[in-house]
Amino acid sequence: MKRYALKLAYDGSSYAGWQVQPHTPTVAGMLEGQLARLIGEPVRVVGAGRTDAGVHAWGQIVHWDTAKPLPTPFLSRLNALLPGDIRALALYEAAPDFHARHSALRRTYRYWLRTYPNPFLRAYSMEVPTPLDLSCLEQAAALLVGEHDFAAFGKEVSRYSHTRCQVVHASWAYSDGLYEFRIEANRFLRAMVRALVGAQVRLAQGRLSWERFRAALLQQDRRWGLYLAPPQGLFLWEVTYPPNSLYLLERYEFLSTAFSTGAASTAAPKLAPDSTGAPPRSAQ
Amino acid sequence: MKRYALKLAYDGSSYAGWQVQPHTPTVAGMLEGQLARLIGEPVRVVGAGRTDAGVHAWGQIVHWDTAKPLPTPFLSRLNALLPGDIRALALYEAAPDFHARHSALRRTYRYWLRTYPNPFLRAYSMEVPTPLDLSCLEQAAALLVGEHDFAAFGKEVSRYSHTRCQVVHASWAYSDGLYEFRIEANRFLRAMVRALVGAQVRLAQGRLSWERFRAALLQQDRRWGLYLAPPQGLFLWEVTYPPNSLYLLERYEFLSTAFSTGAASTAAPKLAPDSTGAPPRSAQ
Repeated sequence: MKRYALKLAYDGSSYAGWQVQPHTPTVAGMLEGQLARLIGEPVRVVGAGRTDAGVHAWGQIVHWDTAKPLPTPFLSRLNALLPGDIRALALYEAAPDFHARHSALRRTYRYWLRTYPNPFLRAYSMEVPTPLDLSCLEQAAALLVGEHDFAAFGKEVSRYSHTRCQVVHASWAYSDGLYEFRIEANRFLRAMVRALVGAQVRLAQGRLSWERFRAALLQQDRRWGLYLAPPQGLFLWEVTYPPNSLYLLERYEFLSTAFSTGAASTAAPKLAPDSTGAPPRSAQ
Repeated sequence: MKRYALKLAYDGSSYAGWQVQPHTPTVAGMLEGQLARLIGEPVRVVGAGRTDAGVHAWGQIVHWDTAKPLPTPFLSRLNALLPGDIRALALYEAAPDFHARHSALRRTYRYWLRTYPNPFLRAYSMEVPTPLDLSCLEQAAALLVGEHDFAAFGKEVSRYSHTRCQVVHASWAYSDGLYEFRIEANRFLRAMVRALVGAQVRLAQGRLSWERFRAALLQQDRRWGLYLAPPQGLFLWEVTYPPNSLYLLERYEFLSTAFSTGAASTAAPKLAPDSTGAPPRSAQ
């Protein structure tokens, strides 16, 4: 029996989230069905993050076990079976004790907001009616960094043994009407990123006071009301694991960052992709 | 009677192209229906470019005539009526003799190719199985610049009085697995950009000889076979008109370039958009 891992990108628009559910299209359900066809036996996958309905991923990591040898080339054969909104980007052999969810040291999410109509980003960003004060957003993000109890920023928080999370990075960036929130932490509560974006947008719009935001963060005061930003702006971006837990078997050499501005360079591509390499430090 | 013009962006995935057809969803048909609802009378629009089924636009320009005053704010009210895959970005008052198609001095198209699977760009780019030789693509594009008879690179070319086009710019750029072809010309034959991309990709793949490509361009030799790259990689990007032909009435201040890499800057937004301005030199 060997444990394998995949790096996945998916457009969550057409799925009721990651987690397998009966009679409902989910990303994990679709993946399990096509992995089973390809490998020739039933497959159960475990994902690093259980993304909700409409949420996307650029670097979701999943693992599964099999005693069968994998067909090669694996990625192109799997992608030929999967629908176009789910793509396998890399295949790894995992250490026997690797677990896509429990072994993750950190996860990074990104969330996009925009102030203008755009038919190409409508499924990948939240539209806000007027520009937001970036310095206000930046001050709010700075408060998030560190270890806090995020109980006021999650759904179904009672199911967790504790609600403390270590945020190692939280920041906003802005370019031409597009705002990007980036947050990296050891763990995230259910709907936590959407709740944090919702709170910060309300702060910047003057609809939530700093006092209430600080009380939610520092005293778990839930009176601010948990406004969830819509799912379509959210991406599970990257998952980081301990060194030597994943050994790269196959990957695509060239990967732009989800979208492109079309501001392409003219650097020539390397024409000979190498598809294997040394054990990576993280799944990226 | 006044003549107005709109700048439109649309995702062509769900439409049978630009041009109105009975019992078929088209971009112009959808726009005419919602303009009529908003203005309160039947509307016929003329577009700068008749994009084919599945082709997108970032800067399509349309004009129409009406004696009625336009409701304000016009753009947000029109966008509230239009489906999310068609967005009006700017409104202009046009000179009485302005014509979205006939007055255009130049049109710019962009086409994206990628060498890797990407669920977010699947509707906006063509996937090629292996990296392409960029210098080959660049040499081919350089040959296109200037005035040529493009009869070997178009569909239904017999319906044109002549098939000569002046290409003022043609280039390729590359970044992280994403190739971008950009071409600007005074006019384009039907399916011409897709035929040019198809020929250049075949050249770079060694499936079309330089002799045959040159013969197609210089002697209208059609023996190379007219391989059309798929529509979803193509964008009508920008249309340029004579100075003072369009007077800006309303627009969105912040407009990212169709997609974004998420490589956002931290430059602060201006918080007070000005929605009118001096007569623009072009529709951009």
